[in-house]
Amino acid sequence: MTSHIKIPSHLTPSDPQGSELLARERSKATFNVKELTLVLLGSEELSRIKKVLTILENDPTLDKSNIYYMGRTDLFKYALRKDKRMVQLAAMFIPTLMGQGTEEQKIKFLKPAMKHEIIGCYAQTELGHGSNVQGLETTATYIPETDEFELHSPHLTATKWWAGGLGRSANHAIVMAKMITNGQDKGPHPFIVQIRDMTSHEPLPGITIGDIGPKFGYNATDNGFMLFDHVRIPRFNMLSKYSQIIKGTGEYVNPPNEKLSYGTMIYVRSIIIAGAGLALARAATISIRYSAVRRQFVDKDNPMILSNGKVVETAVLDYTMQQYRLFPVIAQAYAVYFTGEMISNLFKQYTKQSSRGDFSLLADLHASTSGLKSLTTTMAVDSVEDCRRACGGHGYSSFSGFAMFYQNYLPNTTWEGDNYILTQQIARYLFKTYREIIHSKQQSEEFSLRSNANPTISYLLRYLNNPTQKCTVTSPSDFKNPEVQIAIYGHRAAYLIARAVDQIDNHKKSWNSMLVEINRISRAHCQYILVQNFILTLQPQTSGSIDEKRRILHNSSSLKTVLTSVCNLFALHTMEKDLSDFLESEYLSPKQAEMLRIQVSELLNEIRPNAVALVDAFNLPDYLLNSALGRYDGKVYETMIEWASKEPLNGITPDINPYSEVLFRNDVKAKI
Amino acid sequence: MTSHIKIPSHLTPSDPQGSELLARERSKATFNVKELTLVLLGSEELSRIKKVLTILENDPTLDKSNIYYMGRTDLFKYALRKDKRMVQLAAMFIPTLMGQGTEEQKIKFLKPAMKHEIIGCYAQTELGHGSNVQGLETTATYIPETDEFELHSPHLTATKWWAGGLGRSANHAIVMAKMITNGQDKGPHPFIVQIRDMTSHEPLPGITIGDIGPKFGYNATDNGFMLFDHVRIPRFNMLSKYSQIIKGTGEYVNPPNEKLSYGTMIYVRSIIIAGAGLALARAATISIRYSAVRRQFVDKDNPMILSNGKVVETAVLDYTMQQYRLFPVIAQAYAVYFTGEMISNLFKQYTKQSSRGDFSLLADLHASTSGLKSLTTTMAVDSVEDCRRACGGHGYSSFSGFAMFYQNYLPNTTWEGDNYILTQQIARYLFKTYREIIHSKQQSEEFSLRSNANPTISYLLRYLNNPTQKCTVTSPSDFKNPEVQIAIYGHRAAYLIARAVDQIDNHKKSWNSMLVEINRISRAHCQYILVQNFILTLQPQTSGSIDEKRRILHNSSSLKTVLTSVCNLFALHTMEKDLSDFLESEYLSPKQAEMLRIQVSELLNEIRPNAVALVDAFNLPDYLLNSALGRYDGKVYETMIEWASKEPLNGITPDINPYSEVLFRNDVKAKI
Repeated sequence: MTSHIKIPSHLTPSDPQGSELLARERSKATFNVKELTLVLLGSEELSRIKKVLTILENDPTLDKSNIYYMGRTDLFKYALRKDKRMVQLAAMFIPTLMGQGTEEQKIKFLKPAMKHEIIGCYAQTELGHGSNVQGLETTATYIPETDEFELHSPHLTATKWWAGGLGRSANHAIVMAKMITNGQDKGPHPFIVQIRDMTSHEPLPGITIGDIGPKFGYNATDNGFMLFDHVRIPRFNMLSKYSQIIKGTGEYVNPPNEKLSYGTMIYVRSIIIAGAGLALARAATISIRYSAVRRQFVDKDNPMILSNGKVVETAVLDYTMQQYRLFPVIAQAYAVYFTGEMISNLFKQYTKQSSRGDFSLLADLHASTSGLKSLTTTMAVDSVEDCRRACGGHGYSSFSGFAMFYQNYLPNTTWEGDNYILTQQIARYLFKTYREIIHSKQQSEEFSLRSNANPTISYLLRYLNNPTQKCTVTSPSDFKNPEVQIAIYGHRAAYLIARAVDQIDNHKKSWNSMLVEINRISRAHCQYILVQNFILTLQPQTSGSIDEKRRILHNSSSLKTVLTSVCNLFALHTMEKDLSDFLESEYLSPKQAEMLRIQVSELLNEIRPNAVALVDAFNLPDYLLNSALGRYDGKVYETMIEWASKEPLNGITPDINPYSEVLFRNDVKAKI
Repeated sequence: MTSHIKIPSHLTPSDPQGSELLARERSKATFNVKELTLVLLGSEELSRIKKVLTILENDPTLDKSNIYYMGRTDLFKYALRKDKRMVQLAAMFIPTLMGQGTEEQKIKFLKPAMKHEIIGCYAQTELGHGSNVQGLETTATYIPETDEFELHSPHLTATKWWAGGLGRSANHAIVMAKMITNGQDKGPHPFIVQIRDMTSHEPLPGITIGDIGPKFGYNATDNGFMLFDHVRIPRFNMLSKYSQIIKGTGEYVNPPNEKLSYGTMIYVRSIIIAGAGLALARAATISIRYSAVRRQFVDKDNPMILSNGKVVETAVLDYTMQQYRLFPVIAQAYAVYFTGEMISNLFKQYTKQSSRGDFSLLADLHASTSGLKSLTTTMAVDSVEDCRRACGGHGYSSFSGFAMFYQNYLPNTTWEGDNYILTQQIARYLFKTYREIIHSKQQSEEFSLRSNANPTISYLLRYLNNPTQKCTVTSPSDFKNPEVQIAIYGHRAAYLIARAVDQIDNHKKSWNSMLVEINRISRAHCQYILVQNFILTLQPQTSGSIDEKRRILHNSSSLKTVLTSVCNLFALHTMEKDLSDFLESEYLSPKQAEMLRIQVSELLNEIRPNAVALVDAFNLPDYLLNSALGRYDGKVYETMIEWASKEPLNGITPDINPYSEVLFRNDVKAKI
């Protein structure tokens, strides 16, 4: 459909042009953008991105220019075409088969799945059960007579719900169901079930399937529901790498090591943490570039003057409020990028060790990824929305690139562990560590040794050594000292942990009554990790092999300088946001709090000239951003109007007054 | 389209049923819900709502049960049918005509507009200009030769943008344009312009119009764009109640009193404040009811046991974290309801006085409505999203009633004054008041007298009397004293104002450098208003006529008791959220901060038995909520599955494997 609307082609935006403004911003940068991109991505990843991008941008079936106008059905078809859904489906179905299937099961199911003969989905969540997997109601009862399992949904609340790809696409599902054998409930186990006919694609007898309906986002995905009415499957279909049922007797063979199943979960969470960095970078890129182009009011104390002497409105990026809203998001993005990389490296190390039976990294890694998944995704969702609002009215247009992006990012706060529930997992680990220290003859030698490798133990020991110590800062710039920052964050986390353990152990407080505090503790600990890791990234590496990224960073003083500003802003703005925690422990004084605010404000100034270059370094292509506001070339207004003219409503011949079909409903008005 | 899916009709949710759980909650209430509804709405409004509701629920053309499945075109048609858009359009076009048109202009334009012969819209915002009306680029140049104005868009950024109803519907527009006469720019003025042919509905020559494309929400509305290429209109069409152009000479006659035009703006903002109360109530209703029905995990310290002795999962409303997330939203809703009512009464008083030429209330009312519009809508948007997330996975389904609600509520933070820009208006007023006090021989008699009527003066005087005073609280329950609460909020606002004025006046800080602080000050002042007004509402009225609502409240000790808990929670939770402000001034000590947290936690307990009854009292009908989760009858899961089965995707005969149309794109994969 082509538009009937012709925009007068001689018109341009009023001066200065967006492209000029961005060029001016880029000329002010104090560092080499390409070098910083290499520090973030490395040359190998960078060239992979370039290759993929060339394909994406040039394949007409992958053209994204119309997605903002699509309804659900078109979006669904587009997603099929893009092959994106194949990846989504594979994301849960295939790894579970790989991780928990026997060799025979892999031959039967994994091979055809890799060839797309089997389209699989993963059905765990039920209508009435999400986070508490133990509470699932779907049953899989072993029938010795026929050597089968019978899958059944005893209640409406047992309906499988949310499974991606189930609604319309999948012909097989991995179903998590409560396994019952010899009258005993053995808890949830995974079963592979054919759910649709391979030819007609109709649901098999006894199985009811449908799409769960429209959602806030992800409307290209056919999330589905499913009910079983006494459906039989062969015993073979229980995924049996770890636990099995003996044929005929129904005897249950326990899994050898429960810890083995944690790997996939940690891996998925580490991917989500890295994704939070990307989401933050994307939001910052759009809002920073648009804020450099968008102008509003004249700042009378410091007006913006063109080369022809004309006073024009000030770029909104020059207003301190806008800087205060947006620059911390740049800093968050960098902080989460570096921590995502650290977690990814740690996971690689864990995988190596665990295959040798060494699970020593597991507890810490599980706790960190739980807490960081919670903190970074909540941070990202909030910041994405803050960035959207900082784009003013145009932030509300789909063309901003925010609407669909936000809506699709949102479930990250809920899936793979609800962000509030997760904080309980990390708190349990922290309380356990704290109790071990205080019960082992107060800070024994053993812990001093372990504290080198384990930051939690390190800050807890430091706190216990002198619980009433005070922060030494005497001027705003003292806050830029990384040791000061680490000490402040460490003291705050330790103080909250010590107080909570005291409440539970000595004042018999129930776990439920501590949940608000537990949430604060998880946040405090994970902020510590983010700050400490950012600081470590910028410090010269003294041991081990230095990789390409770090080498580039440490060979460039301009890069180190700008990233130090960014690191300081992250540490100090995050502190300012949660200031009451630090004041309440009396580690910081009210006077120091005022100095902190001054220092944050100075850091905004320090970062201002590099703002656009810092987001350019994320290297996010226009193809991904799909944003009129965040374009690299700054042609904001030209793009807004061009995209608007393509709105399908504008393509309909406007020969009918829409009101001709309106019953003016004076009947209703009269009655009111 | 009917669904092919049959849900097994014998299945019910597992016990306990949602209806039983809500009945149990309601039986625990300590007050009469109907009485509280009357306190909020009054009997007249309540019977009006009942009348309207009967019409809405029984008129088949107003059936809302399908709106979640509709694409843009269907939504647009549905909105036309519902006559909702007529009200939307009227919202800006008609009041401007009424307020700024002469009698002759009203005869010509207002009369046909009331009869829907003229469909009008209001076109102010431009592609490149929002908040700064002075920066508009569209020109209206007076041509003495023909006694006409020539409307013109000199740049692309001058394109009119966002006007509701412009894209497809309107045939007339009120256009704000920079008026130029005799070569002089007289700033923005309103012009009424016919934009489409009354018969063919085609745009008139020289005018380009289109829909601006998809948005985050409001996709039923045809927000439009418009460009003028030297379009002439008669001089008569400049709205001339206040300022005029003399025929032939082009002489400009100034408006008699600039203040007159403030009325409409204040009125619109007062409506938005009341709307924030409604949004908060709606979000709280859905999330509280669903949290009473939804169960998750077993709280081992305090398990939920059915009458048959079976231990079941605990209702999420019993978890303190959930209470901490949701109960403050109930409290915010009540606080904003009462303040909305106060502002509405104040506006009525102002209207009466200003018609007699008395503008004494204007400055304070303008400042309060600016600040409160900013604070309450930001609060509402954030709380609506918090409530949605507190509904877990199902909060993401459109059937939660949150998605469209949130998306459509969102622009409240931007329109009618961007929430950040507005805080500058209130700060200017507060700084002026503060300077008047300190420069008039320190707290003169005059101010002491005025302080009775003006809370701002009252707390500033109190602060100046003893800037270093400390809070007197010595136990958690001391925080429940309303005088203590008012003193704390007053001291904090005054402290921030005094510090900012000192920075500007004595340390020559620029306005721009103070913007972050200004935002905090506006927030502090408006929180003071909300808290003080809530407290006043609960105090016995000593003078004036007592209206029906207050009479009911003060005749019921159970109502006063529960609302006192709600008021305390609002005051103390709000304080806890912004705790660093109070600690930084040293008015509160760290020890007191800890007591505050204990008191907030006790208030959650106090409110727990009344949680469902408190949201029931908002009297929001299922028709409005349109939520499977928030239904009055608690039939959450039955409704989720019933609505899912109606998803149009499920109505398509599932005889095709969607993957048959998929090119598996191995070509792409190979290249990557």
